[in-house]
Amino acid sequence: MKLFSPLRVGTMELPNRVVVPAMVTRLSGQDGFVNGPITDRYVRFARGGAGLVVVEAMAVHGSKSGPLLRISGDEFLPGLRDLAARMHDAGPGRCAPQIIHFLKISRTGWRQKVQDLSIDEVRAIPGLYAAAAARAVAAGFDAVELHMAHAYTLSSFLSRLNGRRDDYGGSLERRLRLPLETLAAVRAAVGPNFPVGVRFDGEECVKGGYTAQEAGVIALRLAQGGADWLSISAGGKFEDAQHRPGEPLYPYTGYSGERCMPGRQYPPAANLPTAAAIKAFVAGHGLSTPVVATGKIHTPELAEGILNDGKADLIGMARPLLADPDWPRKVQAGRFDRVVRCCYANVCKAKDERFQTVTCFLWPRGSINAPESTDAQPPQWPQSGANLVAETSQGRISLKWAAASDNEGVYGYDVWRAEGSAPFERIDAVPGAVCAYHDGTAVGGLGYRYYVAAYDFAGNRSAPSAAIEAQL
Amino acid sequence: MKLFSPLRVGTMELPNRVVVPAMVTRLSGQDGFVNGPITDRYVRFARGGAGLVVVEAMAVHGSKSGPLLRISGDEFLPGLRDLAARMHDAGPGRCAPQIIHFLKISRTGWRQKVQDLSIDEVRAIPGLYAAAAARAVAAGFDAVELHMAHAYTLSSFLSRLNGRRDDYGGSLERRLRLPLETLAAVRAAVGPNFPVGVRFDGEECVKGGYTAQEAGVIALRLAQGGADWLSISAGGKFEDAQHRPGEPLYPYTGYSGERCMPGRQYPPAANLPTAAAIKAFVAGHGLSTPVVATGKIHTPELAEGILNDGKADLIGMARPLLADPDWPRKVQAGRFDRVVRCCYANVCKAKDERFQTVTCFLWPRGSINAPESTDAQPPQWPQSGANLVAETSQGRISLKWAAASDNEGVYGYDVWRAEGSAPFERIDAVPGAVCAYHDGTAVGGLGYRYYVAAYDFAGNRSAPSAAIEAQL
Repeated sequence: MKLFSPLRVGTMELPNRVVVPAMVTRLSGQDGFVNGPITDRYVRFARGGAGLVVVEAMAVHGSKSGPLLRISGDEFLPGLRDLAARMHDAGPGRCAPQIIHFLKISRTGWRQKVQDLSIDEVRAIPGLYAAAAARAVAAGFDAVELHMAHAYTLSSFLSRLNGRRDDYGGSLERRLRLPLETLAAVRAAVGPNFPVGVRFDGEECVKGGYTAQEAGVIALRLAQGGADWLSISAGGKFEDAQHRPGEPLYPYTGYSGERCMPGRQYPPAANLPTAAAIKAFVAGHGLSTPVVATGKIHTPELAEGILNDGKADLIGMARPLLADPDWPRKVQAGRFDRVVRCCYANVCKAKDERFQTVTCFLWPRGSINAPESTDAQPPQWPQSGANLVAETSQGRISLKWAAASDNEGVYGYDVWRAEGSAPFERIDAVPGAVCAYHDGTAVGGLGYRYYVAAYDFAGNRSAPSAAIEAQL
Repeated sequence: MKLFSPLRVGTMELPNRVVVPAMVTRLSGQDGFVNGPITDRYVRFARGGAGLVVVEAMAVHGSKSGPLLRISGDEFLPGLRDLAARMHDAGPGRCAPQIIHFLKISRTGWRQKVQDLSIDEVRAIPGLYAAAAARAVAAGFDAVELHMAHAYTLSSFLSRLNGRRDDYGGSLERRLRLPLETLAAVRAAVGPNFPVGVRFDGEECVKGGYTAQEAGVIALRLAQGGADWLSISAGGKFEDAQHRPGEPLYPYTGYSGERCMPGRQYPPAANLPTAAAIKAFVAGHGLSTPVVATGKIHTPELAEGILNDGKADLIGMARPLLADPDWPRKVQAGRFDRVVRCCYANVCKAKDERFQTVTCFLWPRGSINAPESTDAQPPQWPQSGANLVAETSQGRISLKWAAASDNEGVYGYDVWRAEGSAPFERIDAVPGAVCAYHDGTAVGGLGYRYYVAAYDFAGNRSAPSAAIEAQL
């Protein structure tokens, strides 16, 4: 598979094309130092076999925030050095911190905008990124990723809603100025051989925001400016954030936040057209800078198809690898059937919005990391079988089945559905304690078949239940 | 061209594949009767040669609103009959009214939601549509289109944000119930041979809204329910509307409104992937119901490509035909070079948002319809030439040129740009009184060439100005 072929990114070689994009965990303390839970989370990702693990955003400055890693001073170096070393020991992949500058927000809902910054404050930003990137080198990371996406400072400069009227706003060229100055300062600080990536929005997904059309130009300028990879996100903006009284504004609470982490109502690879347009535009200008596509890309077939079509060079998978960090290792071994699969219920996103530790709701209750197991014994249905039954009520098809059993414990059930003569698709998952499912997306006039399968901590699957037919 | 091949839609034959989708004009009075300006506007569209002209939404009920056509009683029949007859006399195409039910809104920003309707109010809606559709037949229209898009009643039932918990909300099947009951009632009222189309959102473009994934199922159910065409829009919802104090909430003021009428920052055919996914889903279930794609489809090549790729069967063009209703006639005659081209500045949309008469800002000042002319003499540059010059300032490339002259008057200028060795593209237009243009989308590091051409009321083009090079 192309997905497991190596790729040179700048001067580094990634063993495969799977990327863990930066994800908020809320596992760090207010002090910004690497701690045990943070280390466990990232070592777990590294052990899973991803080609590149991007460690969650860490601040390049000391500005107040909630729990957030920091890389804003040398005092953070020992912790970061230990994290990088442990990640290197754990897996074959490379690791890079994402580094971030953000503006001020308050619990009243107020937020500082780029046009509120003095020119001196603006001019200080490249230096902060450069010093942070130098620390990433010193800490032993393989690369660094500059956060220019979502609601944060550099993204807000790139934005079509950048309200500055000096050299740093107004036209696209001026919106690009600070991001390009920052990239140049980072490059000067880390030297020509240290890989520097950029993550930015392919589409802002707010009124007046830019789309793939300008994002292609932005990508090209970043690539010309020396970015070694371009990781494409979407949305996650303050402009449409929903303010909860007494809480600071949080940029993933509106529609643009939904587009950033597309949930179950979105088609697979929901943001791929944007990444593909950017890839085509950059390649059309003679540059081969690798592009990372993200956003509900979850099966090996989908990932492989994207790579083979040349729509992207790397596949970012955040939620699927949160659900099962061993996705790369298992899939490379030909065992996708053992992967615990994300169902895009976005409970992780909801936890993040509530400022809670980000976990996967498919994990056993109380866990702060995905379970690990080398057990090989699959769950078993009762002797009388799964007894899957369907009934229609309240305009839905409701399924019930008998609990499976397992030597370790049943971790969850996958729900599979076929519509008419189409092949079965896994449509959802439920935690192990639940033996019921309500399908509110089925409609009258079409016939469906369903089956369920149980899985354990290692991802061993039970035999599929007998399939049943149902219609509304 | 396939674009100018006939298409059978239900029992009617359209002479070509160009559709004028329903557009707000604000030309009607508060009384809801057809008047002179309304007639002029639609006769103008008909004369332009579109295969199907959908007349702006008219209310099936008497609920209070601003200026809006009505089809809610027989008193409106004479005016509607006259309109249909005049449209038939004017051009080769067919004409259909769009019929609409809407919920209440107030100047405080309050709006009635579907869950606020009593069950009796819900059950009355199909009958209102059926009676209105019967009037469309009696008025001599060729077909009728049911408005199930944007922020209006049936769309709000289809919505994933439908908050009812009875038989008309909760699951997708229940959200479909009222729209399908309405379609059935209309079909019963108009008989099997009168074409009935449906316009609905392929994507809601608001938080929690549905996407192409459910829209395919919705489309299929509507097609199974007897819809003769499926016209795909996007967004235009109340949920993200921006409330202006003292004005009723208007559903095109947020991001979803922007997606409904994608402006210049959007790529061409911005909503096409959704229409194509719907077409594929419906066709995959053995139904050939024609699909209308809309949203920034503006050139013959783009339209023809969409038809040839089977992504849609009909091309809806609202703003391009507002700018020049003669688009179909001119393009069919091989004279796209004479079309006055929309520049997607969305001044029409802004006027609509301000409750002003909707006109095109490229039209001569004060006009309430597109100019018409049979003049064949193109504008001329002065003897000293166009003298196009570029300077860079404020991070933009600014162009200036000499005024052209014309026997009728110079109507406007098209601005063309080539980036590097790419072919020239028309990037914008300016009204005739303006001989300057600021390109805020140019960036450093790339080289550009520009030229301009003047056009008159008939769309005759001057010779292109000499091309000039510029860079930031």
